[in-house]
Amino acid sequence: MTAPHASDRMVATYRLSRVDLDAATETAIAIAREQTLEVPPGVAEPDMEAALLGRVEEVVRAHEDAFDATISYTLAVTGTDLLQLINVAYGNVSLMNGVRLVDLVLPAPALDALPGPKFGIDGLREMTGVAPGRPLLSVAIKPVGRSATELAALAATFARGGAHVVKDDHGLVDQPSAPFRERVRAVAQAVAESNAATGGRCAYFPNVTGPVDTLDERLDYSIAAGSTGVTVCPSLMGLDVMRAIAGGPHRLAILAHPTHGQAAPDRHEGIAPEVLYGTLYRVAGADAVVYVNAGGRFSWPVETCEAISHRLRTPLGRHRAAMPVPAGGVEAAEGARWLARYGPDTMLLIGGSLLRQPDLLGATRRLAEAVGEACASGARA
Amino acid sequence: MTAPHASDRMVATYRLSRVDLDAATETAIAIAREQTLEVPPGVAEPDMEAALLGRVEEVVRAHEDAFDATISYTLAVTGTDLLQLINVAYGNVSLMNGVRLVDLVLPAPALDALPGPKFGIDGLREMTGVAPGRPLLSVAIKPVGRSATELAALAATFARGGAHVVKDDHGLVDQPSAPFRERVRAVAQAVAESNAATGGRCAYFPNVTGPVDTLDERLDYSIAAGSTGVTVCPSLMGLDVMRAIAGGPHRLAILAHPTHGQAAPDRHEGIAPEVLYGTLYRVAGADAVVYVNAGGRFSWPVETCEAISHRLRTPLGRHRAAMPVPAGGVEAAEGARWLARYGPDTMLLIGGSLLRQPDLLGATRRLAEAVGEACASGARA
Repeated sequence: MTAPHASDRMVATYRLSRVDLDAATETAIAIAREQTLEVPPGVAEPDMEAALLGRVEEVVRAHEDAFDATISYTLAVTGTDLLQLINVAYGNVSLMNGVRLVDLVLPAPALDALPGPKFGIDGLREMTGVAPGRPLLSVAIKPVGRSATELAALAATFARGGAHVVKDDHGLVDQPSAPFRERVRAVAQAVAESNAATGGRCAYFPNVTGPVDTLDERLDYSIAAGSTGVTVCPSLMGLDVMRAIAGGPHRLAILAHPTHGQAAPDRHEGIAPEVLYGTLYRVAGADAVVYVNAGGRFSWPVETCEAISHRLRTPLGRHRAAMPVPAGGVEAAEGARWLARYGPDTMLLIGGSLLRQPDLLGATRRLAEAVGEACASGARA
Repeated sequence: MTAPHASDRMVATYRLSRVDLDAATETAIAIAREQTLEVPPGVAEPDMEAALLGRVEEVVRAHEDAFDATISYTLAVTGTDLLQLINVAYGNVSLMNGVRLVDLVLPAPALDALPGPKFGIDGLREMTGVAPGRPLLSVAIKPVGRSATELAALAATFARGGAHVVKDDHGLVDQPSAPFRERVRAVAQAVAESNAATGGRCAYFPNVTGPVDTLDERLDYSIAAGSTGVTVCPSLMGLDVMRAIAGGPHRLAILAHPTHGQAAPDRHEGIAPEVLYGTLYRVAGADAVVYVNAGGRFSWPVETCEAISHRLRTPLGRHRAAMPVPAGGVEAAEGARWLARYGPDTMLLIGGSLLRQPDLLGATRRLAEAVGEACASGARA
């Protein structure tokens, strides 16, 4: 940075692709105007332009035909509401090709105003009784098409096998095969009975993604059924919907699922995954963030996964650290190796590869043991 | 299509880039699984797989190294809720590179269940008193930084000059320079007074984008101030938030703004603009949809604009036609030419280029006249 940023300015970095330095500089100036005053030069008075236009802080070469433009924005334009912060950081310019949001530093007053995780890593450990130094294991119940009874039986097996969190698959909503209330009641009861039998503290996080005007009913119902957390798809429902849950009266941890995030490494547009899942999901209130692990079905590089984990756990204003949840086709057999790499403040999410095992209870037990030992001294082979 | 689709299946077409036919076919099969059962082969019973997996209908070459894969999905998985439809059409696969959603045909029961436009083109004509055959003119009041009084003065000038709709810029939210209530009260009053003076029926659509948990208050306040419509940013707030407004009790037209849509032509990923703005925004309840016009600041091709307009106006189940609103740096002087091309069922949106005029009232009057005549016999030069 050429100048120190006042902490009340939002600082966004855009990667501008397929341009030379002149074109990148011109684009940066255009972005600074587009995202703030959005009127041609001469419409606003010079002092308004000076006060309110985005300020191009620097334009530096990122690689051969790409430049990183860093632009800061005044609080007078961004305010502290989540949606306006996103609107200024990546609103209209999301419609331009060759403009990618690769970094975002929120202004201090916004960090103060946004809810962040209500539980965070420490709260999830307390909820599930997993001591510091040991990773957590979560499992997804699925597929769609199974009845509430069948899903409850799966959940019971997972809970008895030692999973710390059982979550609904993000594709389970309110289908006739397992309607929301019937499913939540059956699964919550199955998990509670397993806990009673084992003395464990497995938590069940139903998927509350669905119509926003009935969301409160699903949150209320989840609490009444005994859940201490829920699964939310923020990029589908809207990030501010998650913010409202986190900032609202329901005492529920939030496991955020990445579906419809439209984010992936190596694109020329969109929001870099670490910014969306590592920064925005966290400040918007996710206690745990599911992301696409390397080596799974989506071929994301491990560096992206590590960048997301880093942003979820690094100090950020007054906010609790959020739990990284690598997922997306992680082979159960490989889980411990990934945890050794990512460190103990990680929750592994396993779905399909576990469901494939003929002895599901035995496989869950072995996996839970491996997860528990993954970060023990000497395990980082 | 190799087989006729039952109308209760959702049909999505994905453009798969940088692949050969074998890789495209393999990816299509993977998408059909990822978006439905999301478990490896062998976990679900064969009859569940047959009933619930997405069905690859065809894979055809789109151009040299891209193929279009058409996949249909059963209602048993998609249901009729907007978010689950989007989740199945473009959920997890939005995290894969090289997979773009280029077409979407919704199942008939979903079309029936979704609200669609409450007013549509005909309702907006009735509201503003603009006869069929004549395009509409809307103008944005801005920039952020102006006081409520200053914005109200602008709105009064536009209303007196003959604009049919005055809208808040999408960047005007609740900043201290013009807080929401102060602004809405002042602007609504200014527009009402102008209407009283001219006998016109200019409508004012305040921007209600902001925290979802206080949205109802802003809708109530807009109605109390006399507004008959609002400006909404669905891709920021969440498409289902717009759906809830359209399906709810507030009698307000919705002007949808495209910010944060992350859609543009010629990308290898994301949702094609005509699908997002032409189909999804419409079924979710937009009465008018702002999009980036060709020749403006965003360099979208005119074919994309025409495709959006077509989808907004073409017959679609029981739904009203929605009004296309080309915008984004349209020069006032060019407006009539664009309208002649797009046809009379179009609302031009002008912002900055009008604000630059020294005689704002005169310029608005000339523009309103040109818009009114744009599609008259002989104007299609």
